[in-house]
Amino acid sequence: MNVVILSIGDELLSGNTVNTNFSWIGRKLSEIGCSIIYQATIPDNKSTIAITLDRLIKMKPQIIITTGGLGPTSDDITRETIFDYLSVSELFDKNYWDQLKNKFNQMGVKIGESNRSQAMVPDRGYIINNPIGSARGFHIDHKEVSIIILPGVPSEMKNMINDYVIPLVNKNGIDKKYTAMIRTTGVSESKIFEMTEEAIIQNSNCTIGYYPSYKGVDIRIKSNDQKLTNDMQSDIINILDNKVFYSDCDKSMEQIVVDLAIEKNKKIAVAESCTGGLVGHRITQVSGSSKIFLGGAIVYSNYLKEKILSVNRLVLEKYGAVSKETAQEMAKNILEKTGADLGLSVTGIAGPEGGSADKPVGTVFVGLADKDNVFVTKRNFINDREVNKLKTSQLALNELRMKISE
Amino acid sequence: MNVVILSIGDELLSGNTVNTNFSWIGRKLSEIGCSIIYQATIPDNKSTIAITLDRLIKMKPQIIITTGGLGPTSDDITRETIFDYLSVSELFDKNYWDQLKNKFNQMGVKIGESNRSQAMVPDRGYIINNPIGSARGFHIDHKEVSIIILPGVPSEMKNMINDYVIPLVNKNGIDKKYTAMIRTTGVSESKIFEMTEEAIIQNSNCTIGYYPSYKGVDIRIKSNDQKLTNDMQSDIINILDNKVFYSDCDKSMEQIVVDLAIEKNKKIAVAESCTGGLVGHRITQVSGSSKIFLGGAIVYSNYLKEKILSVNRLVLEKYGAVSKETAQEMAKNILEKTGADLGLSVTGIAGPEGGSADKPVGTVFVGLADKDNVFVTKRNFINDREVNKLKTSQLALNELRMKISE
Repeated sequence: MNVVILSIGDELLSGNTVNTNFSWIGRKLSEIGCSIIYQATIPDNKSTIAITLDRLIKMKPQIIITTGGLGPTSDDITRETIFDYLSVSELFDKNYWDQLKNKFNQMGVKIGESNRSQAMVPDRGYIINNPIGSARGFHIDHKEVSIIILPGVPSEMKNMINDYVIPLVNKNGIDKKYTAMIRTTGVSESKIFEMTEEAIIQNSNCTIGYYPSYKGVDIRIKSNDQKLTNDMQSDIINILDNKVFYSDCDKSMEQIVVDLAIEKNKKIAVAESCTGGLVGHRITQVSGSSKIFLGGAIVYSNYLKEKILSVNRLVLEKYGAVSKETAQEMAKNILEKTGADLGLSVTGIAGPEGGSADKPVGTVFVGLADKDNVFVTKRNFINDREVNKLKTSQLALNELRMKISE
Repeated sequence: MNVVILSIGDELLSGNTVNTNFSWIGRKLSEIGCSIIYQATIPDNKSTIAITLDRLIKMKPQIIITTGGLGPTSDDITRETIFDYLSVSELFDKNYWDQLKNKFNQMGVKIGESNRSQAMVPDRGYIINNPIGSARGFHIDHKEVSIIILPGVPSEMKNMINDYVIPLVNKNGIDKKYTAMIRTTGVSESKIFEMTEEAIIQNSNCTIGYYPSYKGVDIRIKSNDQKLTNDMQSDIINILDNKVFYSDCDKSMEQIVVDLAIEKNKKIAVAESCTGGLVGHRITQVSGSSKIFLGGAIVYSNYLKEKILSVNRLVLEKYGAVSKETAQEMAKNILEKTGADLGLSVTGIAGPEGGSADKPVGTVFVGLADKDNVFVTKRNFINDREVNKLKTSQLALNELRMKISE
């Protein structure tokens, strides 16, 4: 089933908002076998919305999903513009207006007259409920295309995709595609390509995509046959080192780490310097992480490295805060202080300031201690502050993963 | 100057990668006065690339920027497809190939034969250098449109926009638009709209956009006249409470907090429970934050709340970890232990587990201590785990901002 996504909003084009809605919808619908064949982003402008919708309908997808422009303010014009284009009349839904007023009352807020526009409904098609917000969605069929009009607020849009669009797609049947994922970290795209090239040539009925990001390279396999897809996945995984390959599904590194730690009952504590809390933040993005994550210390200043973490001042003075020796102490000491099974430490120079000739910006040390040993890994990243932090957190989590799965 | 962006890559449509490139380009070019009039995302498919490019050229923008598909692997087909479409011949650039080989040698890596494709250049147009990666960009003029072909790796693409595209735009002159920003937090879009409606009606020559996100609502003002834009901005800011309004430019909350803390020389420490390190992570995204951020503790477990932060066990038992009293103790104790001027604490229930009737998922307490006092703010968010964490971090940073600017 072919799907086209139309993202509406000046804030997307001016870059004020990153279009995470589109990638979320893309992932959800790809997972159930849809092909997202095209996506466009356009401004909150009547004629552009109408012209673009006209052009997208001519691509003859089964579904067009629009997001954005259903809010209560004057720049929200999606509903009336699309209704006009489809020659649909608007009706005022008094029942819904009363419900909205009640909802606002319960939150202790007086409803604005501007919210009245959100009680307008089309004279044909379907209304898509919004249990968590005020703008409802619409589904109107036109020239064999199902046009689905959704709000831009991510949680509300997601709710409607899950509760309305996915059941609709499943009901109408789809050409099943089989996909498989392989996630890697720490190795470049061209290196991954070379390592896997031979396996791929031997199985040319699969489509292979390489998707590099700062967290690593994902390999996605797709074919019409489940066995082919799975065999290709196993062949590639067999080629890859356990250090590099970390997931055979969409799970994030932090999810993999938390799952493994729960399985092996390993309590984790962190001592973060240059990442400033990012490793803890990523671990605690995973529901259930409280089972294995105790917490730790953010020792951004040298003073706190000594004060909270009891890092030996002589070590700090002799080797510096960014050193193998400091990483070792940090890992050992957080382990001791928290009683965790594994103590993870991170120290480095995120940049842009603070680099030197022998320790340039991007130099990082990751320490990992258990009750018997402590190991330190050094890397040298060459990116900006944010990317260096992200890559360091990925490296740290990967070290943790390898240790737990030993 | 009108700009169209064409994002090429299966990984974007399948949602495996979020298109942050597009929003980054949108922001950078909007800032210098360009209008991004359209953006499309298409698969790595020859005919789709050619058909779409043809359609985009008919929109008659001054510039079309493509990103993606210049890598060394077999699914990277942008260069050859666009060269074909434009009837441009490919030449092999032996000099560049030798340079590439040297670069890889220096990194201690053998270059792959697949990288050879990255040494192909068009027989007309311009080559855009890539000092940090291997895929160069191209600029080819066609029917009064400048077609700019860039790689999808964010750091490489950004480099080319900064060093090549922005100077190109500035050289060719642009219709100047004046924009102004107002960032708010803690109040809904419809509320902000109502508060500001009157000021906006009085100055109808400005275009106003409202951009809600989980961090708050941004208001963007645009007009052809600098004074009009600035007056409108002041009028709206005057209406808004200091609790709600936090920035009159694109600066993030964390940047504002760090700038203020540096200005007032206030040292900050954090004690994070439900945010797991996110507040520290956000503060340390800001270059220079080491001047004022000492660090702190991630006290995810109750055990560490007692062990590292000396929160009184009786308080934890009597009021619970998610309570005003615990937030108070956490803020006071992190202040004492670190010697900071301001101690910020966060405790709450991110969800989806852990809620109860009187403390549902989304209940959070933010404590803020200085040497004399400690204040606690309570909120109740109603989102999923990740959004609850994000909103809590924004609330915490906003409390910090208000305190520092007192």
